[in-house]
Amino acid sequence: MATEFEIVEFLRTIFPDIGDDAAIFKLKDKGIVSVDTFIENVHFPTIGTSIFSLHDIGYRTTVATLSDIAAMGGKALYLLVSIGVEKGDRTWFKELYDGVQQALNMASIAQGVEVKVVGGDITYSKNLTISMTVIGEAATPITRGGAQPGDKIGVTGEFGRVKLAWYTLKQGGVLPDWLKIKLLQPQLRLKEGLTLSHHVHAMIDISDGLLLDLSHILRMSGNLGAVINLDKLPILDNVREWCEKQGLNPIEYALSSGEEFELLFTYPPEVEEQINVGFTPIGEITHQPGIYDNKGCKLTPRGWDHFARRTNPPNTPPTNPSTA
Amino acid sequence: MATEFEIVEFLRTIFPDIGDDAAIFKLKDKGIVSVDTFIENVHFPTIGTSIFSLHDIGYRTTVATLSDIAAMGGKALYLLVSIGVEKGDRTWFKELYDGVQQALNMASIAQGVEVKVVGGDITYSKNLTISMTVIGEAATPITRGGAQPGDKIGVTGEFGRVKLAWYTLKQGGVLPDWLKIKLLQPQLRLKEGLTLSHHVHAMIDISDGLLLDLSHILRMSGNLGAVINLDKLPILDNVREWCEKQGLNPIEYALSSGEEFELLFTYPPEVEEQINVGFTPIGEITHQPGIYDNKGCKLTPRGWDHFARRTNPPNTPPTNPSTA
Repeated sequence: MATEFEIVEFLRTIFPDIGDDAAIFKLKDKGIVSVDTFIENVHFPTIGTSIFSLHDIGYRTTVATLSDIAAMGGKALYLLVSIGVEKGDRTWFKELYDGVQQALNMASIAQGVEVKVVGGDITYSKNLTISMTVIGEAATPITRGGAQPGDKIGVTGEFGRVKLAWYTLKQGGVLPDWLKIKLLQPQLRLKEGLTLSHHVHAMIDISDGLLLDLSHILRMSGNLGAVINLDKLPILDNVREWCEKQGLNPIEYALSSGEEFELLFTYPPEVEEQINVGFTPIGEITHQPGIYDNKGCKLTPRGWDHFARRTNPPNTPPTNPSTA
Repeated sequence: MATEFEIVEFLRTIFPDIGDDAAIFKLKDKGIVSVDTFIENVHFPTIGTSIFSLHDIGYRTTVATLSDIAAMGGKALYLLVSIGVEKGDRTWFKELYDGVQQALNMASIAQGVEVKVVGGDITYSKNLTISMTVIGEAATPITRGGAQPGDKIGVTGEFGRVKLAWYTLKQGGVLPDWLKIKLLQPQLRLKEGLTLSHHVHAMIDISDGLLLDLSHILRMSGNLGAVINLDKLPILDNVREWCEKQGLNPIEYALSSGEEFELLFTYPPEVEEQINVGFTPIGEITHQPGIYDNKGCKLTPRGWDHFARRTNPPNTPPTNPSTA
C-alpha cells in the first residue's frame, strides 16, 4: 500500500503537469467545462464482480466525461481526475489511468489537438468514486437551447445496445461481442461534434436516453415539441433479433437506453446535404409541445434518473414501456 | 423526495447558468483550475451526528476548494458542484447551497469580482460525496515551485485550532467559541493571495499541515530546505492554554494542523516591508535539504495523508510528535 503522496509522485511520472494547488491552462476560444461523477455500484459494478476491469472503468468514465464536450461542438483540452478509493497501489492506479489515457489518445486523434491530465485529487473512500472535470474550448459552443420549429432531428450511431447489455448481464446472460464492445469500448463523438457545430442549432449527448435527452433540448429551447419517426430509428439487426427472442421491444430499448454517448441534434432542413458526418434523421421539431411518434401517439420520456433509480434501476427491464 | 430532474430545475432558479452539457466561460488572464472531493466520514462527520450542519458543510467545502485559487494568487470565477447523495429534497439542497453561496459571497467581496456556480452533477451515492471544481484566473499564477535559498517564509493567520478542535470533539468535549468558529467558519485568504502574488516566489495553502505543505514547496523548488523559528509560530494564547491543560504540545499542533486554509509563502527578504497584508515571518529557505528548527533539530513533516489516515486518523492526537 502506497501513501497518497507516493501515488501522486507516481502519477507525476505519467502526467508531469499535475501537482500544484491548481493547474494553469490557456485557451484560444471560449472555454467550456463539465464535471461528471461516477460511483461504484451506481454507475458501474464493483470491480471484480463483473466484466468491467479497472482499465474499462477508466476508459468508460473518460469517454462519458469528454462526451459532454463533444455535445457542445468543442475540443477537449484539459482533464482533472479526482479518485476516492479504499486502497490503491501503483499497479491499481496504473491500470485505471491506462484506461483514461486510452480514451484521451482516441480523443486527441479525433480532434487533432492533445487532451491531457493536468490535475486532480486522491482521497480515501469506501466506495470507489471517480469525479472528472474536463475543460475544453469551442469557437461556437452549441447549447441545448437553440432548437427551432421546423428543424430536423438527427442522431449519430445507433441505439439500444447499452440498455440491452445491462439487461442481459442482470439476467445472468453472457454478452455477445456486439453488445460487449458497446459497453466496454464506447466510441467518442468529438470529431462528429466538431463538424456538426458548423451546421446544427442545438445538440446534446445521449446519456439519459434518447427521449429524455430530446426532452431536455425541447424544454431549453422554449418548450417546443417533436415528432419521431419510429421506423427511422437506427437499431442494429442484432438488437432487434436479440430483443425479439426475449419478448422485449427494440423501439423501447432504443428510445430509453442511456450512456450511449451518441449525439442528438437539430438542424435546418436545408443544410442536411452539407453535414459531412454519418447520421440518421429521425424526426422534426414542432411548435406543439410534447413528443409524438409518426402515428400521432404520445411518447413519454423515460430514462435514467439517479434518484428514481433507487426503486427502478435503469438496468432492469422497463415495467411500463414508454412507447404508449 | 424529488427526482434528479426536479432538483436540477430547482437549482436553476438559484443558479441560472447551470443546465447544459457543459458550462461556457470566459477568461481575461491565464486560467487556473482545481478540484477537491469531500466524502462523508472522511472529510466531515455524518450529518446529524456532529456540530456540522449541512450549511456548514457547504460553506467549508467551498472555502477549501477556493483556497487553492487563493494559493495561486488568483481570482475564483466559476464553480461546478457535483453532489452524490442518498436522498435529498429541495430543502436539503437549499441548505447545502446556502452554505456554498455564503462562501461565494465572501469570496466575491474579497476579490472584487463575482464567483458563481455554473454547473455540476447530481447522482445517487450512499455516502454523501461533494466534488467541487473551481476555475479562476491569475495574471501571474504563483506555483509551489518558485522558492529560492535565502527567501523568508511567511504565513497568514495562526495555526493549530483545527487539529485541536477535532481532538476535542473526538474526546467528547465541547468546543469553546474560539475553536468552533475556526472549524465551522474558516476564513478565505483570496484577498491576501492576490496581494501576495505581487511579491512572493512560491505559495501554497495549508491543507495538509504547515510542515507537510512546506515540504511540498521545498520539493517542487528543487529539493531545498528550511529553518523554522518555532518561537515565531503564530499560535493563539487560547490554543497554548488549552493544550497545556491537556498535556498536549501546542507547537506540534501548529505544525501539523491540516485544513487551516492559511497561506504559506516564500519571499525575498528585501520586499518584506512592501507586503501589505497581515502575516508572520517564521523562517527561511536554505540550500541544505530538510526542515530544521532554530535549535538545529530536524522536524519531520507529518500531517494529513488520506491513505495513511485509515490507520492514523488526523483527528486523533499524534502518537509520535513530529517535533523531535
